[in-house]
Amino acid sequence: MRPLTGYFFEDYRVGQRFVHATPRTITAGDVALYIGLTGARQLPHCAKTVATALSHPDTPVDDLLVFHIAFGKTVPDVSYNAVANLGYADCRFLQPVYVSDTLRCESEVIGLKQNSNGKTGVVYVRSNAFNQNDALVLTWARWVMIAKRDAGGAAPEAVVPTLPQSVAAESLAIPPFLQARGLTPSASGSDRFWDEFTVNQVIDHPAGMTLDETDHTLATKLYQNTARVHFDLHHMRDSRFGRRLVYGGHVISVCRALSYDGLENAISVAAINAGSHLNPTFAGDTLYAKTVVVEKTPLNDDLGALRVRLLGIKNAEPSSINPANPQLPENVVLDLDYTLLMPRQ
Amino acid sequence: MRPLTGYFFEDYRVGQRFVHATPRTITAGDVALYIGLTGARQLPHCAKTVATALSHPDTPVDDLLVFHIAFGKTVPDVSYNAVANLGYADCRFLQPVYVSDTLRCESEVIGLKQNSNGKTGVVYVRSNAFNQNDALVLTWARWVMIAKRDAGGAAPEAVVPTLPQSVAAESLAIPPFLQARGLTPSASGSDRFWDEFTVNQVIDHPAGMTLDETDHTLATKLYQNTARVHFDLHHMRDSRFGRRLVYGGHVISVCRALSYDGLENAISVAAINAGSHLNPTFAGDTLYAKTVVVEKTPLNDDLGALRVRLLGIKNAEPSSINPANPQLPENVVLDLDYTLLMPRQ
Amino acid sequence: MRPLTGYFFEDYRVGQRFVHATPRTITAGDVALYIGLTGARQLPHCAKTVATALSHPDTPVDDLLVFHIAFGKTVPDVSYNAVANLGYADCRFLQPVYVSDTLRCESEVIGLKQNSNGKTGVVYVRSNAFNQNDALVLTWARWVMIAKRDAGGAAPEAVVPTLPQSVAAESLAIPPFLQARGLTPSASGSDRFWDEFTVNQVIDHPAGMTLDETDHTLATKLYQNTARVHFDLHHMRDSRFGRRLVYGGHVISVCRALSYDGLENAISVAAINAGSHLNPTFAGDTLYAKTVVVEKTPLNDDLGALRVRLLGIKNAEPSSINPANPQLPENVVLDLDYTLLMPRQ
Repeated sequence: MRPLTGYFFEDYRVGQRFVHATPRTITAGDVALYIGLTGARQLPHCAKTVATALSHPDTPVDDLLVFHIAFGKTVPDVSYNAVANLGYADCRFLQPVYVSDTLRCESEVIGLKQNSNGKTGVVYVRSNAFNQNDALVLTWARWVMIAKRDAGGAAPEAVVPTLPQSVAAESLAIPPFLQARGLTPSASGSDRFWDEFTVNQVIDHPAGMTLDETDHTLATKLYQNTARVHFDLHHMRDSRFGRRLVYGGHVISVCRALSYDGLENAISVAAINAGSHLNPTFAGDTLYAKTVVVEKTPLNDDLGALRVRLLGIKNAEPSSINPANPQLPENVVLDLDYTLLMPRQ
Repeated sequence: MRPLTGYFFEDYRVGQRFVHATPRTITAGDVALYIGLTGARQLPHCAKTVATALSHPDTPVDDLLVFHIAFGKTVPDVSYNAVANLGYADCRFLQPVYVSDTLRCESEVIGLKQNSNGKTGVVYVRSNAFNQNDALVLTWARWVMIAKRDAGGAAPEAVVPTLPQSVAAESLAIPPFLQARGLTPSASGSDRFWDEFTVNQVIDHPAGMTLDETDHTLATKLYQNTARVHFDLHHMRDSRFGRRLVYGGHVISVCRALSYDGLENAISVAAINAGSHLNPTFAGDTLYAKTVVVEKTPLNDDLGALRVRLLGIKNAEPSSINPANPQLPENVVLDLDYTLLMPRQ
Repeated sequence: MRPLTGYFFEDYRVGQRFVHATPRTITAGDVALYIGLTGARQLPHCAKTVATALSHPDTPVDDLLVFHIAFGKTVPDVSYNAVANLGYADCRFLQPVYVSDTLRCESEVIGLKQNSNGKTGVVYVRSNAFNQNDALVLTWARWVMIAKRDAGGAAPEAVVPTLPQSVAAESLAIPPFLQARGLTPSASGSDRFWDEFTVNQVIDHPAGMTLDETDHTLATKLYQNTARVHFDLHHMRDSRFGRRLVYGGHVISVCRALSYDGLENAISVAAINAGSHLNPTFAGDTLYAKTVVVEKTPLNDDLGALRVRLLGIKNAEPSSINPANPQLPENVVLDLDYTLLMPRQ
């Protein structure tokens, strides 16, 4: 059984499996709080009329809210003693989740690599979230840097898993019932559909949002994510940051919400191809968002995949950031490569 | 299509119509958050037993929550570049809204007047909110000061609409099924019914409530109101305020919640006759509320209309404010003339 | 009828009864907000799958959320002018409360004792909360110190009620349908069931949680608790604290949430035997929790009662506190004696 103070690097073995605790039913309350915490306006999750027009049987829960709740389940076993969340890969949203669905989560260790300093190591994990009918709704890989209990101990054999650079279009899940043209410009406020976008197009989203302590702590507690760095100021005063760190997932959600103006017709997140939290975000920071179109793939007559890069920027206008810069400045906090589903014209 | 950075004064024409984007389904989550953000205790919205006793088919959503969500829909088209919200008139709540109803909104420009400085102008708008059955649930006029894109441009012909000083009693909507005597003193905590009040009566509501940054930003994001002044500290640092402005609607809601003690039997807001945000409110301010009875009109044997003036006051006891003062001091932030429905004795 | 500024010590009589105002329907929104505000993970309230496995007809509402909402109802009549909440006794959770249940509350004055300084007195109250079917769901006694209106007035005859030191095991309510073994270690994350615990066992819960102003004010407004000390900074600036006080009930809830790690299989709170708020808590404080097992009583083949003492500690690790110390240091803010129901092995 898991020790109360969590696992350290030495505790992990390749092939080790975790059945994560505390399944969670998602309610209308979670959905409203998510809107309140992020300002999200993505329509299928806010308007039953639009969900119905898309042929959803009910209002689907925002993909990122699903991600955060599922992710939260993995924290006690995977990242309780994490020094850093290093990256995400091959994250696929496989089935819509609806209000009153219950999520549970399992993970497997797929790689281990001790760092050369001998004090930490990288743990690679594949996590799967299931609904109450045992249907797989979400799968993702992530790797985290974990402290060693004993800095002097021998290193395990290094195993670094092969993960795809991006999720292939043929691996993207499309709900079979989806009537993508149910999303109309009068509802979304925009006629910028999939066909309008061009590869390398850059969108500087106009809005900014300042984070306060209760914003991110309320969100992170809602997700039942127990990582100490987000909540415990008494403990964090002695860290190199001197204060609480904003959960990276909250940064993703706020930037995704800010990206509504310019990507109004994106109906869902189909995949997260890759992502890094480049710099920490703190209460008092103002976030802005910049999108670069990476790739376009038609999926069927009605629907296309739009692979984009989302840059989250703190305390600077998006126009001040050159996304082609190989060394992004330190006010870029997020570099996320993800794939949206969007109706065609 | 709307530019990402919103419209300027030159973009408006009298008669121009907007179908506002992002319809919104109201849920039990919104209702709970509204209570948490304002401390509202107005009974028909909090207690299913009371709603049923009033013959509502379900728990009706607080009128002001309906107003804020509908108002939020209009912001991207009407007030994204607003310098100030100047006033409200002829706001009528026409039908109850229930949990799981979806609101959408349309507006028409009904007046335009360039200011003499040539840099800004006033835009008058009539907005209408509809539910998912296309029933008109709320209508209101407001006027906002909007920046001009080009200060040197010619002024349009001035059109100032005629708006009523107050909503006439015969224009107040009363739900046909309403059994007003379903609200009992044991539930509301008060036997001060409509008959008890006298014109010019003044009520200094006893409670005060301090606002923090997350209170107003969480509320305003919940309403999907995107006005930059409320969220973007990085941007507002360069404004004359140097910080984020509290959404005036949040001030209205907090003052209305504070007014519970003294107006316990007000079952709904039937109309907003007029209203101005006299001074800005910031996080850290403590709000108090004062009510002056303006007019009493019996509506039927069971129900009366109570037209009142609600003063919102910051950082000072309500007793310190003389409502007859033609030049209210700058700690009065709100002067709202609105009409309540209240059971008779 | 209650004066707007509340009752003073002289207004209370032994045997006096109050029917408290503003009944309240509990919704999925309240439940989600409670999780967000406290980080609670107690499973029967978070996961419909677990509630069903325990044979609940629906997801039961967290006992402490029920307590806070019921408690909030009593504030206008009982503690509006309270100087301090002195203690709780004989608090019993008698029936599960489910989403969409409506709570109302009544109280009776069971004791009165003027303090020797002549300026304040202690009022003892028994409160009962009922659901919409008039079933008694919760009963508790508490005593509060209340200011006198007139310091010179004569003292009433002192009546101090006899209250039990703890709730006897035979008075604990067990839902007749409960299948306690429905809670599995894979769901809770722990195989520490009732049989594993030993009297005098001490658990230092590992997590800490920092409180911000919006956390406690949002929670306390959600409970419609109107006690001025929590909300009104303008008023509190002149108090000896100089700032707003965190509602003691929020401290209880946060400490109970923190105690999840170590008490994962506690399925409900059956009773609060006694409790005191030893020191004030303010925004910025970080709370930690320590549990001491006081008593174990088997209830049936499947279920045991675990009476524990929960210490809430601010800004210090739980390991630094010796619970046997008769004079606890001033960073201990809560000393709560309560009884959990837990499945047997």
